[in-house]
Amino acid sequence: MSKFVQKIKKIRLKNKSLLCIGLDTDITKIPKFLLKETNPIFAFNKIIIDNTFDLVCAYKPNYAFYEAQGQMGLEALEKTKRYIPEDIPVIIDVKRGDIGNTAKMTAKFFLEDMTFDGITVNPYMGFDAVEPFLSYKDKCSFILCLTSNRGAEDFQLKDNFYLKVARKIVEWNKNGNCGLVVGATNPDGLKRIREIASSIPILIPGIGAQGGDIKQAVTYGGENIIINSSRSIIYASSSEDFGKKSREEAIKLRDEINKYREGR
Amino acid sequence: MSKFVQKIKKIRLKNKSLLCIGLDTDITKIPKFLLKETNPIFAFNKIIIDNTFDLVCAYKPNYAFYEAQGQMGLEALEKTKRYIPEDIPVIIDVKRGDIGNTAKMTAKFFLEDMTFDGITVNPYMGFDAVEPFLSYKDKCSFILCLTSNRGAEDFQLKDNFYLKVARKIVEWNKNGNCGLVVGATNPDGLKRIREIASSIPILIPGIGAQGGDIKQAVTYGGENIIINSSRSIIYASSSEDFGKKSREEAIKLRDEINKYREGR
Repeated sequence: MSKFVQKIKKIRLKNKSLLCIGLDTDITKIPKFLLKETNPIFAFNKIIIDNTFDLVCAYKPNYAFYEAQGQMGLEALEKTKRYIPEDIPVIIDVKRGDIGNTAKMTAKFFLEDMTFDGITVNPYMGFDAVEPFLSYKDKCSFILCLTSNRGAEDFQLKDNFYLKVARKIVEWNKNGNCGLVVGATNPDGLKRIREIASSIPILIPGIGAQGGDIKQAVTYGGENIIINSSRSIIYASSSEDFGKKSREEAIKLRDEINKYREGR
Repeated sequence: MSKFVQKIKKIRLKNKSLLCIGLDTDITKIPKFLLKETNPIFAFNKIIIDNTFDLVCAYKPNYAFYEAQGQMGLEALEKTKRYIPEDIPVIIDVKRGDIGNTAKMTAKFFLEDMTFDGITVNPYMGFDAVEPFLSYKDKCSFILCLTSNRGAEDFQLKDNFYLKVARKIVEWNKNGNCGLVVGATNPDGLKRIREIASSIPILIPGIGAQGGDIKQAVTYGGENIIINSSRSIIYASSSEDFGKKSREEAIKLRDEINKYREGR
């Protein structure tokens, strides 16, 4: 069992949670009073983490939000990674895919230098673009399969292309360190992917702001899932009480997920 | 005609060139004597640009190489962008694809804040992941279609999937600001894509280190192409003379491309 799998199993039990919070921290959306802080993005994340660390099985910062803020953003990301308790896996959402020598550099940067536990990867360029990530055996590479956005119809759903991707990922999972990204917005797709990839962790975005169905995500995804929610939790309030409100939202979502787990 | 198209037409004529140099500057591969510079990556790029700016129709830095160096890398990228003569288009190679709000942030960062002229985009997530890039009408979004790596066989070449992608990109090209990425390693694929996308600029990597055929790239791609070479030019020498050697390699490649243009 890879270190990632061990880590997420432990924290799922400890926090009784399949919830992942997406730290997609947009400086234009955080409460205004934080803007006076040296690093407003980190100040925001710190309060979100303080209020939710006992409710989640993972955090998932989307790199684009940090990169867009230049040096301050990168510093916020580093500080956030260090601030998150060691026993909670952190998945960096970068959706990368590039030829071997480039992918190798990206994998080293995020998984080794920045010590993230998991990463999201784009499958379009095939195995040699994914392999450098998979060479990190103790990490987990979540490969995009069926995404939660409308554009999934353009290619992924054409002739069930996403199922070919799922089958390939099962082939690539020799070290047990692949994951899949499957949006909650297509429960039937999730069901079919789970039939193909029975033992691979599935990261499920599309709950909350994007309208995916939690009951079906749990019913079809099973226990080995990570349900991500970002905006509906982190922007639950824009006042001084945003930490408390994010906690309330996280509890609500965690409990709703758990209700369907028990009902299975 | 978009600003990007005008700009590249002008410089192609001025420099008599379809050559793009990939500034994939790897700190472990640059001449050792540069490591004493405050910013070795920029120092390297500066010398490459000084020696090649009159030979190219574009430069293409791959972002992964800069990001992996943290603050120094980002600074090198900014300085490189500013140092490149204003009349030469600079394409930032990031191969991104993410849901709308994230893509919007990425597009703003690279095309507006960092003022790059073009960007590479991954099509896997479909239209709404590409649209934020296309909303920059004066820029060019080069969408991956058939890549130069071996992994292209895993999905792109299965049931000619890449042709479906090419057809979609033609649909998306309403503002005339789409481009395609097609590797030189598959001339037959390039030929078929050109039949579908007759007027869209094609960025062609895979020459040089990856072994693609220049004659076929020019024959099938036509005049509206940008042939990228990176490693074989920028690492032509690891001695003090690397600038001069990169110039010699660039002249050789530019002239070889032009020989086939004349022969068409």
